[in-house]
Amino acid sequence: MAVGLELLDRIDSPDDLKRLDAGRLPELCAEIRGALLRYRHGHGGHIGSNLGVVEATVALHYVFDSPNDKIVFDVSHQSYVHKMLTGRRAAFTDPAHFGDVTGFTNPDESDHDQFVLGHTGTSISLACGLAKTRDLTGGSGNVIAFIGDGSLSSGVAFEGLNNAAEQGGNLIIVFNDNEMSIAGDFGGMYGPLARLRASNGTAQPNIFNAFGLDYRYVADGNDVNALIAAFRDVKDIDQPVVVHIHTTKGLGLETEPDPEAAERDPWHSDHCDLSDAHAHAGRCEASHWLNPDSAAGKPDDPRKHYGKLAMAALEARFGTEPGLTVVVPATPGSNGVTHAFRERAGRHYVDTGITESHAVAFAAGIAKAGGMPVVATTASFFQRAYDQFFQELALNRTRVTLLDFLGGLSGSDNTHSGAYDLTMFANVPDLTVLVPTSREAFLADLAWATAPDDADGRGSSASHATGPVVIRVPGSPILDAERAGIDLPQALSAGAAAWSTAGGAADRSVSDPLRYATTIHGSRVAILALGNTYPAAAQAARSLEDELGSPVTLIDPRQCSTLDTDALESLRGDHELVVTLEDGQLEGGWGEKITAYYANHRMPDSASGPSRNPRVINAGALKEFTDRVSLPDLQRRYGLTPESIVQRVREALA
Amino acid sequence: MAVGLELLDRIDSPDDLKRLDAGRLPELCAEIRGALLRYRHGHGGHIGSNLGVVEATVALHYVFDSPNDKIVFDVSHQSYVHKMLTGRRAAFTDPAHFGDVTGFTNPDESDHDQFVLGHTGTSISLACGLAKTRDLTGGSGNVIAFIGDGSLSSGVAFEGLNNAAEQGGNLIIVFNDNEMSIAGDFGGMYGPLARLRASNGTAQPNIFNAFGLDYRYVADGNDVNALIAAFRDVKDIDQPVVVHIHTTKGLGLETEPDPEAAERDPWHSDHCDLSDAHAHAGRCEASHWLNPDSAAGKPDDPRKHYGKLAMAALEARFGTEPGLTVVVPATPGSNGVTHAFRERAGRHYVDTGITESHAVAFAAGIAKAGGMPVVATTASFFQRAYDQFFQELALNRTRVTLLDFLGGLSGSDNTHSGAYDLTMFANVPDLTVLVPTSREAFLADLAWATAPDDADGRGSSASHATGPVVIRVPGSPILDAERAGIDLPQALSAGAAAWSTAGGAADRSVSDPLRYATTIHGSRVAILALGNTYPAAAQAARSLEDELGSPVTLIDPRQCSTLDTDALESLRGDHELVVTLEDGQLEGGWGEKITAYYANHRMPDSASGPSRNPRVINAGALKEFTDRVSLPDLQRRYGLTPESIVQRVREALA
Repeated sequence: MAVGLELLDRIDSPDDLKRLDAGRLPELCAEIRGALLRYRHGHGGHIGSNLGVVEATVALHYVFDSPNDKIVFDVSHQSYVHKMLTGRRAAFTDPAHFGDVTGFTNPDESDHDQFVLGHTGTSISLACGLAKTRDLTGGSGNVIAFIGDGSLSSGVAFEGLNNAAEQGGNLIIVFNDNEMSIAGDFGGMYGPLARLRASNGTAQPNIFNAFGLDYRYVADGNDVNALIAAFRDVKDIDQPVVVHIHTTKGLGLETEPDPEAAERDPWHSDHCDLSDAHAHAGRCEASHWLNPDSAAGKPDDPRKHYGKLAMAALEARFGTEPGLTVVVPATPGSNGVTHAFRERAGRHYVDTGITESHAVAFAAGIAKAGGMPVVATTASFFQRAYDQFFQELALNRTRVTLLDFLGGLSGSDNTHSGAYDLTMFANVPDLTVLVPTSREAFLADLAWATAPDDADGRGSSASHATGPVVIRVPGSPILDAERAGIDLPQALSAGAAAWSTAGGAADRSVSDPLRYATTIHGSRVAILALGNTYPAAAQAARSLEDELGSPVTLIDPRQCSTLDTDALESLRGDHELVVTLEDGQLEGGWGEKITAYYANHRMPDSASGPSRNPRVINAGALKEFTDRVSLPDLQRRYGLTPESIVQRVREALA
Repeated sequence: MAVGLELLDRIDSPDDLKRLDAGRLPELCAEIRGALLRYRHGHGGHIGSNLGVVEATVALHYVFDSPNDKIVFDVSHQSYVHKMLTGRRAAFTDPAHFGDVTGFTNPDESDHDQFVLGHTGTSISLACGLAKTRDLTGGSGNVIAFIGDGSLSSGVAFEGLNNAAEQGGNLIIVFNDNEMSIAGDFGGMYGPLARLRASNGTAQPNIFNAFGLDYRYVADGNDVNALIAAFRDVKDIDQPVVVHIHTTKGLGLETEPDPEAAERDPWHSDHCDLSDAHAHAGRCEASHWLNPDSAAGKPDDPRKHYGKLAMAALEARFGTEPGLTVVVPATPGSNGVTHAFRERAGRHYVDTGITESHAVAFAAGIAKAGGMPVVATTASFFQRAYDQFFQELALNRTRVTLLDFLGGLSGSDNTHSGAYDLTMFANVPDLTVLVPTSREAFLADLAWATAPDDADGRGSSASHATGPVVIRVPGSPILDAERAGIDLPQALSAGAAAWSTAGGAADRSVSDPLRYATTIHGSRVAILALGNTYPAAAQAARSLEDELGSPVTLIDPRQCSTLDTDALESLRGDHELVVTLEDGQLEGGWGEKITAYYANHRMPDSASGPSRNPRVINAGALKEFTDRVSLPDLQRRYGLTPESIVQRVREALA
């Protein structure tokens, strides 16, 4: 049930806000802060950043006239307060409506939202564009980019800063400095920024001045009236200006009643409880993303689960492999790169800031000098390093391993979907893309990708990788099967022996991760199930065996960057139907390559006997964006459930 | 024939250089400069930047001990002098060996080359990685990143700067400031940089200090002994440092004898002859890339030719469409965005620096506010904006047009190949990718992509685009056919009438660029020829008609982002073979989608009569890197010549 809020309940738009006396705004901010704390418990989300910008958001809407004045929130994870003030209050105050809005700005929800965002650092560029059109077309209004100190580490943000002064005209960049990125702030610019804060904004070098920009400083960025004064001062300014506001991330968290507090050390601003049970204000990574109370005690999600496994496997080697290095562009916690691991890893761990391009190029440098880098981040964030896959990784054949988290289908929002990861990775020449289907395969792939060079510095694909490797971290279909103790036909044990004879290539074994593993030898139908589709395929194979009276072939391809043509050739004659399954986009994806292989390599059918050219059908994701559609719904939509696989085979055989 | 050079001829390695007395180095630099000027006439290349760094490169190799000390040249287009000093002199001094080496660093050529590079801004990141491994593994040696002021506009360079100070340890960033990017320098940081130069390196704000870095300044970056002193001063330094050297791009060009000089205005350093007939030192775009003498009088290449056409078409609308804006991330000249056009375009033109990510996000902002942006750059550079295609363009449905130059196959080097452009663009949901096959189609596509919104702000695909559009600029197969006056079956004239009946969809016409155009109606064989493959396909179709005695169907698909299933369905029954042709990578490309469409949409064959499921074969590029392989060789390798198309059809029909 929604809690009654005296002031906030009156605000359906910024106009309502403007009717409040400025003297009552601190009270409004307290109401909003209380609402966010309740929302944290009931729904969870990016609570810390929103708590930090309560006053700044209220002040922006009090001073400026959105949507005529246009506010672009960088990443837009900190837009909850903005949504509360622009007609979407109930989505944060009424549990019945939690989830009615996205966690990011979205023009489909409101004219006050300029863009669908979720990735870092483009707010200044977007704002430059809004201002450019305004100035070319004789429009009016302020354009405001709102960007945090963590986001400022992102290269495109600097590109935007560098263009802002060149362009000229009204553009207000609110730099929300809470001294925190997702984890800590990392980078050489943060020292000078600290001196800027300590000097009340007067010290040089001032990075914003260095980009040719005018600059103002607000020491207490959680004082709503100080912010109002600062924003009034720059409203309708005729040149770009940076308003640097110093805020406290998670402000309000430490005031929550905590029944266990007495048993703990007092919380200090330099102490951060990373147990995920608590979070508090200030420089505390644990306040970045907060789960709802209902998540308490739940087991790790696949990212954390497999991420922790990977880090443990690497950590065991740090003592003997000094060049082994984990590189994380700012998102460690969500991918199981825990605070405790990082502390133990010491110099073997580098947080590069929100810098996927740099992180991948940096890793290439590490590899070139003989180190062994592993870059871990979320699939959709890797999109930022696409050019580096070509140049720094593939063309240079550097032994860099990319751990691709949240790849494939999930219930994610549209800006973080991993449905496009294999299309991105697997079409880059000379990039090996491994798609393990079990914990054991995942760790074996990691070991193969990162094993030290042989003495001769080369090695074969059977012993270790010789170039860049992407490993797609398994998702919930695989983790769920492992947790349920489901006994999937295994690629690495029985399959190995089976395959070594089936392929007719005695000199290669299934320990070569580039070979497909035939885990059930059958006939008539072959199911090639990539990655997360493998558990459903195994279930479908069992059903089809019952239905057809004899086993169907099941193949775990294990990788999707090259075709194992021996495996494909071996299916001719015995199999009239080949089914490919992938939990990512079909167009540009993996299954179509199988289809095209058979289409372009037809063999004459013998006069009698079955065709040597199997029919191929593909199941996978449509080329579309999806936004918080549940994984089971997506699996049904794309024909990836055991039932729909069986049905599709049945129709094809009819 | 090679010119004898007293000093340079003695240098086969940096060790030979170190044996020279420092007093003779200016003489050596003069020899190198002379060699570069001769090389310019005989071979062409990035002469201006190399002329600017003659002294800096000599000084680096005189002071440091490559390859133990590792030099990473950003982009590495300025590495000619480095190559001359590291055993590859003849490739620049002996016309018989011109072309023996690439125009960029390449470890396959020499241990003195750290990386294959060609794209901007990653040198600092790569150097950080080299230094990281050195420090983790107890190695030794200096690591040096050599980066220009133009390259510094690139986001990843800032990401690298921000990480350098955080990392600590020996790292020397030589900042080669010649006050020029590819065209001019654009950005707010260049004002403070100018003040830094004017103050002999003492003024604040100092952008390098703002990133936490130590800093030195060398006012005369073309004084080899001043550079030697500065480099000696930082050699073996225990922390990152920036050595800012002020150099003159193209130094030496203005001393070339010029028979027409008397007829011209005297050249001043603020005057730049952009006629491409001459080039000179300093802030002169014309010195960036210089063609060999043999290129004089040659007609424009396809990039310049179609780029000029596009700019002319847009310019004609500037007067009535104030929001129409051409955005170029720093590479105007090579794509036909001439200096004269830029001057006339005024505020309708923006050079953003070498910032593809920003340029695309900026364009999204322009579009969101109602402007109409066109972003023009080279296909492989667009790789830097891959994430923006998803977030700022597709998810936000912004009407941004990307002009994709040098897309598809060409004789380019490996870092600039466009063979991967359609794989990159056409698999992004909601991004329309047009592939015109003639000058008329190109301009029609541009008009469709950029036409103003209808009064209701929406419009249909027949009148104008409603979201982001990529237009692949035609390449030499099309331009050559147009110049030769070859009469290709046209999509827009005869084809229109033909198609409007063939598709059975009277409400759609071929003026909708998303529909395939059937330009020859035939039977048995259908050739679907995308973009640059269309001229060869038309020739093959004529040969096949002669051979088969009746016409084969020829289709210009015109786009590759959606399937025209009406067109594909219409081929059933009459056609036993469908051939797709594309001049880009097959894997993840376009043809495989056609193959998969038919494979996944089989129809029951009638008891008598031809199959309703045509066989599909695909021709296109292998998934591989190629380096300066000529286009005819690539066309032969990939089966894209008229002869190989005919041969493949003949075999398939046999």
